[in-house]
Amino acid sequence: MSTSSSSQTQSLKIGIVGFGTFGQFLAKTMIKQGHTLAATSRSDYSDLCLQMGIHFFRDVSTFLATDLDVIVLCTSILSLSEVVRSMPLASLKRPTLFVDVLSVKEHPKDLLLRVLPEDSDILCTHPMFGPVTGKNGWRDLTFMYDKVRIRDEATCSSFIQIFASEGCKMVEMSCEEHDKAAAKSQFITHTIGRTLGEMDIKSTPIDTKGFEALVKLKETMMGNSFDLYSGLFVHNRFARQELENLEHALYKVKEMLVQRMNEEQGQERLES
Amino acid sequence: MSTSSSSQTQSLKIGIVGFGTFGQFLAKTMIKQGHTLAATSRSDYSDLCLQMGIHFFRDVSTFLATDLDVIVLCTSILSLSEVVRSMPLASLKRPTLFVDVLSVKEHPKDLLLRVLPEDSDILCTHPMFGPVTGKNGWRDLTFMYDKVRIRDEATCSSFIQIFASEGCKMVEMSCEEHDKAAAKSQFITHTIGRTLGEMDIKSTPIDTKGFEALVKLKETMMGNSFDLYSGLFVHNRFARQELENLEHALYKVKEMLVQRMNEEQGQERLES
Repeated sequence: MSTSSSSQTQSLKIGIVGFGTFGQFLAKTMIKQGHTLAATSRSDYSDLCLQMGIHFFRDVSTFLATDLDVIVLCTSILSLSEVVRSMPLASLKRPTLFVDVLSVKEHPKDLLLRVLPEDSDILCTHPMFGPVTGKNGWRDLTFMYDKVRIRDEATCSSFIQIFASEGCKMVEMSCEEHDKAAAKSQFITHTIGRTLGEMDIKSTPIDTKGFEALVKLKETMMGNSFDLYSGLFVHNRFARQELENLEHALYKVKEMLVQRMNEEQGQERLES
Repeated sequence: MSTSSSSQTQSLKIGIVGFGTFGQFLAKTMIKQGHTLAATSRSDYSDLCLQMGIHFFRDVSTFLATDLDVIVLCTSILSLSEVVRSMPLASLKRPTLFVDVLSVKEHPKDLLLRVLPEDSDILCTHPMFGPVTGKNGWRDLTFMYDKVRIRDEATCSSFIQIFASEGCKMVEMSCEEHDKAAAKSQFITHTIGRTLGEMDIKSTPIDTKGFEALVKLKETMMGNSFDLYSGLFVHNRFARQELENLEHALYKVKEMLVQRMNEEQGQERLES
């Protein structure tokens, strides 16, 4: 099956669970591409959905009973388990493709394999961008995905095509590989941004280019919720080791500095 | 006295002590502007100086006896004290302006005030750029300076004008203010770059924009010598506190994560 040709794609009926900022952000492009959307959320988004041409369901059971091709889970990392476990999945009328879009991947994979009906397909994805980085389109932004349990290749392919056709950099990798790499990169980036936020670093009259980049990083990272950041830690089993590596590396750098300082001071005593 | 008008400037006879990468970098622009240059260094740079049109002195005493308007100290932070203390300053024929260009400022100020002849002028500066950041000109790059002991305003003004006329952002502040701000900005930037270097962070197939910025920062910072980095620590009395602030902030971020993890795990136990 190829995902590079758009001739195979079909218009999908997509239901979004959790219609916060990220769900709304994805929905806009899906509507633009001609897919039909429905949504449900713990908060009431019926006015916004009416404006966007999306059917909003207050009742999850009715939402599930609607004839949907794909259900996209757009909850936070920390609430996914509670949201999925509370869904009356018996209301599903037919096999459905479930997609998650969280920034950790083993956790939703394990949960969905455990909780969803055996005939549901599962696609775990991580669109590595959001309303800020993706505000001028998705070209060259990374979309990671893992076909965890796919029998209906056509529907899965059409869903993946949503991102490929916008020009995303498509990366297929296992959920485990994703979490290993994300702990080393995304989690460490958030941790440094949060640490600089905790220090309350600020521009000075003598900023270097490198420091300007750190001030910008701090601001971007502090713009994310603590819920997102702690989700990257709590539900990525590789994150704790990377946090320890960061602490250890800082400790080693400090040790080298202190040793050099002692050498210099010894030298000065000899000279004076 | 104004440094903004170039009509007051005179062509200077400038001697550079320490003709490494940074001394050579400054010399190029000074020659371009029509100043006359001499140099001395622990290593022999006579061939390079011959090509550049600079008189190279192997003997420091002869160098000092030359009729120079300005002597620019371009040593490393760690070697400044040894280099200056070993100079036969009695060879100086007349009052001279001494300029340092180190990335710490209280240390050279204190040293030069202690060691130089009473009739020498002292200008402490920090050109906050180098061969990499300044390779396409110095426009908008920061030049910090402190007129520590200036009697010959004309010579000092002409020297400062070298940087102003290239379009540098001119920042006059005390050496103490500089070191306070640099410990919070430049030193922390180097420390994070070195810590990421110690962790050996690398690009992954799923880099975020923020992580890309950190990889770039790591590479820039690891391109600097450990001598420079340790100089920023050993000879800036504010650096140790900022290193402790960084360690403490990372500790607090970790504490918040661990607390949230415990809450989540408690929640899961209640649910199951």
